[in-house]
Amino acid sequence: MTARSSLTVVLAAGEGTRMRSSLPKVLHPVAGQSLLAHVLNATDAGEGSSLAVVIGPDHAAVADEAHRVRPEAQTFVQRERLGTAHAVLAAREALVRGVDDLLVAFGDTPLISAETFARMRAPLREGAALAVLGFHAADPTGYGRLIVENGKLVAIREHADASAEERKITLCNAGVMAFDGRRALAIIEKIGNSNIKGEYYLVDAVSIIRDMGLEAVVIETSEDEVRGINTKAQLAEAEAVMQTRLRKQALEAGVTLIAPETVYLAADTTFGKDVVIEPFVVIGPGVSIDDGAVIHSFSHVVEARIGKKVSVGPYARLRPGTSLGDGARIGNFVETKAAVLEAGVKVNHLSYVGDAHVGANSNLGAGTITCNYDGFLKHKTLIGEGAFVGTNSSLVAPVKIGKGAYIGSGSVITKDVPDDALAVERSQQTIREGGAARYREIKLKQKAAKGK
Amino acid sequence: MTARSSLTVVLAAGEGTRMRSSLPKVLHPVAGQSLLAHVLNATDAGEGSSLAVVIGPDHAAVADEAHRVRPEAQTFVQRERLGTAHAVLAAREALVRGVDDLLVAFGDTPLISAETFARMRAPLREGAALAVLGFHAADPTGYGRLIVENGKLVAIREHADASAEERKITLCNAGVMAFDGRRALAIIEKIGNSNIKGEYYLVDAVSIIRDMGLEAVVIETSEDEVRGINTKAQLAEAEAVMQTRLRKQALEAGVTLIAPETVYLAADTTFGKDVVIEPFVVIGPGVSIDDGAVIHSFSHVVEARIGKKVSVGPYARLRPGTSLGDGARIGNFVETKAAVLEAGVKVNHLSYVGDAHVGANSNLGAGTITCNYDGFLKHKTLIGEGAFVGTNSSLVAPVKIGKGAYIGSGSVITKDVPDDALAVERSQQTIREGGAARYREIKLKQKAAKGK
Amino acid sequence: MTARSSLTVVLAAGEGTRMRSSLPKVLHPVAGQSLLAHVLNATDAGEGSSLAVVIGPDHAAVADEAHRVRPEAQTFVQRERLGTAHAVLAAREALVRGVDDLLVAFGDTPLISAETFARMRAPLREGAALAVLGFHAADPTGYGRLIVENGKLVAIREHADASAEERKITLCNAGVMAFDGRRALAIIEKIGNSNIKGEYYLVDAVSIIRDMGLEAVVIETSEDEVRGINTKAQLAEAEAVMQTRLRKQALEAGVTLIAPETVYLAADTTFGKDVVIEPFVVIGPGVSIDDGAVIHSFSHVVEARIGKKVSVGPYARLRPGTSLGDGARIGNFVETKAAVLEAGVKVNHLSYVGDAHVGANSNLGAGTITCNYDGFLKHKTLIGEGAFVGTNSSLVAPVKIGKGAYIGSGSVITKDVPDDALAVERSQQTIREGGAARYREIKLKQKAAKGK
Repeated sequence: MTARSSLTVVLAAGEGTRMRSSLPKVLHPVAGQSLLAHVLNATDAGEGSSLAVVIGPDHAAVADEAHRVRPEAQTFVQRERLGTAHAVLAAREALVRGVDDLLVAFGDTPLISAETFARMRAPLREGAALAVLGFHAADPTGYGRLIVENGKLVAIREHADASAEERKITLCNAGVMAFDGRRALAIIEKIGNSNIKGEYYLVDAVSIIRDMGLEAVVIETSEDEVRGINTKAQLAEAEAVMQTRLRKQALEAGVTLIAPETVYLAADTTFGKDVVIEPFVVIGPGVSIDDGAVIHSFSHVVEARIGKKVSVGPYARLRPGTSLGDGARIGNFVETKAAVLEAGVKVNHLSYVGDAHVGANSNLGAGTITCNYDGFLKHKTLIGEGAFVGTNSSLVAPVKIGKGAYIGSGSVITKDVPDDALAVERSQQTIREGGAARYREIKLKQKAAKGK
Repeated sequence: MTARSSLTVVLAAGEGTRMRSSLPKVLHPVAGQSLLAHVLNATDAGEGSSLAVVIGPDHAAVADEAHRVRPEAQTFVQRERLGTAHAVLAAREALVRGVDDLLVAFGDTPLISAETFARMRAPLREGAALAVLGFHAADPTGYGRLIVENGKLVAIREHADASAEERKITLCNAGVMAFDGRRALAIIEKIGNSNIKGEYYLVDAVSIIRDMGLEAVVIETSEDEVRGINTKAQLAEAEAVMQTRLRKQALEAGVTLIAPETVYLAADTTFGKDVVIEPFVVIGPGVSIDDGAVIHSFSHVVEARIGKKVSVGPYARLRPGTSLGDGARIGNFVETKAAVLEAGVKVNHLSYVGDAHVGANSNLGAGTITCNYDGFLKHKTLIGEGAFVGTNSSLVAPVKIGKGAYIGSGSVITKDVPDDALAVERSQQTIREGGAARYREIKLKQKAAKGK
Repeated sequence: MTARSSLTVVLAAGEGTRMRSSLPKVLHPVAGQSLLAHVLNATDAGEGSSLAVVIGPDHAAVADEAHRVRPEAQTFVQRERLGTAHAVLAAREALVRGVDDLLVAFGDTPLISAETFARMRAPLREGAALAVLGFHAADPTGYGRLIVENGKLVAIREHADASAEERKITLCNAGVMAFDGRRALAIIEKIGNSNIKGEYYLVDAVSIIRDMGLEAVVIETSEDEVRGINTKAQLAEAEAVMQTRLRKQALEAGVTLIAPETVYLAADTTFGKDVVIEPFVVIGPGVSIDDGAVIHSFSHVVEARIGKKVSVGPYARLRPGTSLGDGARIGNFVETKAAVLEAGVKVNHLSYVGDAHVGANSNLGAGTITCNYDGFLKHKTLIGEGAFVGTNSSLVAPVKIGKGAYIGSGSVITKDVPDDALAVERSQQTIREGGAARYREIKLKQKAAKGK
């Protein structure tokens, strides 16, 4: 069998006014990814497949996101919002090219899976002109009901038009449709707008197909998978469903999540063996965690590579561009950014390591700060293997600390330090005997005076 | 219609022994406010309204809280705890003044709403002598049942006294009562104490009213709204109900709560448009968050004003008296207290800014600390517009950093710095070639010696 | 009545391959303790009691854990895994000694209670030869059903062998068994392996006992208590059940948990009166919290003693060996380790106090760091009563700060400071008028050059 050609049209032009946000609806994130990205990632990317995204006017950011996720996507602007069929026809240029399958999906259903999209295309190969995605709604009120007779879809009845008997049907229309590509354009063009709102609705395709003597079928899925998102509350619910899914996958892969419900993962997080994640951890996009690593409580990790047996946190913040070599330890109240820490490096307390490369087995004491920004430009800090940086030190970049070098506590290092050298920036410690006692006396008088 | 005069008597004299706490029960907080404050805030504050709070002996702190929340409140001490009717009569001085409506409420039901109190007063205008608040209990065991005939309340039957048939009734007495004010005192004074405990119970008002040929009615509400709090577990349940309510309101107002169940809000938190709150955030009382601000994970914010497009956290702690101008950024492991940060100020890492005023667009480097306390007194730090403070600097207050001034890393600044001046407190960096190597040798010998 | 002698055999030899971990299954933790430790702590430790733990080959760590928790335990290795009866016989050396009661328990059921074990032994005193622990399963599919006639257990029917009628039985076998000790060995030795897998199953004891004309009974418990753990998901569920139990106990003891579902406790956490724990707190093993202490949000506490009216956090990390005297305050972004802080000590911000003793009422300023590690060895810091350490100071251990001493901000203290002395390590503050303006000019040129 030759691979069938397929086109997926993703409708992403909705205004999303109920989100009460100036951000276009499909750009809101779930599990660290935009709604649109979730849908696009689920669409067919095989040979012979093509992708069209229909966006609203003034939504250039949506087009950008589509291209970021799927560079080959074509985008089309729907100038006026005149219904779903009208939106599909905004991509007419893609439709006329002719494909075996046309799938129409929605940019605001982030929980949908590639497997469901594949299941929808299957009936087309067996002669159906249309497959409609359906789900059994816990409360079907408001949804269009799928009227099925002898295994075929004969109508989609809107709630308002449904009889008392039909309202008992729980099988509802999820919106997603797969058309026989050779007939799709002809069918969709027949859809009229003689309804109260004067809009063109894709659901009308069912009766048109029936009139043409063609066949429509229903593909079922779970209600969770087709949740559309129209409000901030629904966005939060989708996040919750997605997180439950990601946590379950992680547990099945053998990750120890002590309190799974308190760990937030991204859709692309990857795990090695024997990884442990403690309660209250947030993992953003682009994170890989290798064998035996432990992420302690209250850690926040985004775009970072965590090597084998690394210990992170508690209270560690790994920002984009962090790479931690095997056995490295990042302790509490430590921030890293664009920082490569080789194997065995320790940064255990109260530090900021940004725009830096730290050689293997170096130890950065509590309060170490790489001063990467001079108020105008960012600079790099390079630290050699086996170096030791004393507490409360400032490494003023650009600066290079040699291998095996030792920096005394409290130093501000502005000049490069050679390998194996000892560098200190410090004054003499002076002690005034009885000085604190005298100071106390003065201060207590001041305090008393103030109190008067 | 002239406004009717109303008196609300809030009973807040309970000992709360089951709370196992030395804090009076009604002072325990829910969503950052005492139980009592929630109830008082729901009581009528319109023209012609007055408020009496009945407190227990030795509970001066309860009176203080009542006056803090509603300065016009009169407080009365119930010397002995002899039942609810006895408690109301402790406020006799207020009762004798004569009002159109008398509402009796309870200081330990923080979830009750002003709307419910208003609904309770309505029947009095139509001739009822009494309105009793009722709710359908999921498990009515232990509650007094409301016996209703022809739409009128004819009796409140205590669980112990109820017949098998009556125990099937799920409509229960919530305790709150609204009396026709002209008759209230007469009715309540008729209540006797011929019962096992020898106490005076307000529920007996129902049979007295019936004997007087007057009318009592039931006003229904949800069980959640009338939860009384007697244990720490019930306190936690009320907090959960309140948080669910606050989160729902925030979502409906368009706030993005990625994981609503992990965000703790206060009853008075206010939000602008397009606010985002990430997982694991605690917001205490007195916080306003303006348009486009983002509160990142693990942030803790109390009594703070957050301007437009401000970025807070992760791991930011904003303490009382913090004011962040538009576009300011407070990063990780940063604490602010009594600090006004003007527009565009950045404090991105590991800093403490207390008792300070920071001019627009200033940048405080990692590890900046305002030394506001000398062990005896607190002092202020003033930083001008566009200043730059290098990393690991201590600003010893009282001190003034001028506009556009630049402080070198690692400085302890004890004297004022003029506008546009460069200030440094630092020694020469000294380097001993091979010094680290020699140090290592010595240390390894010491370690070996110790190991012996 | 003389105390009866009892032997408990804990089977802990399972491989736990479904955990997908190299850690032996029974060593995975729940509420800060290994599964095995929970079970061992529930077993009889009274006079005349003895304990045997059967471990897998190459599981020396399991034996170590058994001895750590119960030093008197005998461990036995089951060389091959040939069924539960075979596992019990690995402890034959303990069995032959002869006891009144033999209890067979499982190392992977951490939620089981001492009370249940005691209930299981009771029927033996009344003549039963065997007591089997049963529970009513919400979904009994897959479990062995307990067939009870006239109050006696007549058979355990495996799911596969059960009739349609028997499958309706919800009373299932939890595995735990108590034998009359005088007959136990004889019974268990009669168990054969004529089944598909060729293994020896303890459940066969029931039919053997019946054939011997002896009596078996069922002791019931809840399904929660006998959850066995075979996967990471089940481990997380057990943690959730245990945490719910611990939070409930804390609330009943009068602890204020504002959001109980966000507080993680250890099985051995102890609380005084009027303790408050805010949302998002993790408490590991070995923690005691005394009267009136408050643990603020985002705190992480392990092996620490917290005195009366101490305030901890938010964002405090107390590591093992921390002891906080009455009224001490540990503020945000502060880490303590092996640190004794006497009464009234304050460490309010951004500090690390490790391997230290701090005298009463001392105040450690923001950014104070005890430099306890020189890259090779750890050293101690001693701070006297009433000392004041200025901000951003490094105390390079070993070092001693005297009583009432005062350390200037930004100092690196390497030499001891006498009582009441003032110690400073600092240079002169130098100011270059207009220096920042000139610097800006240069930098802006550099930036412009870079942009080209």
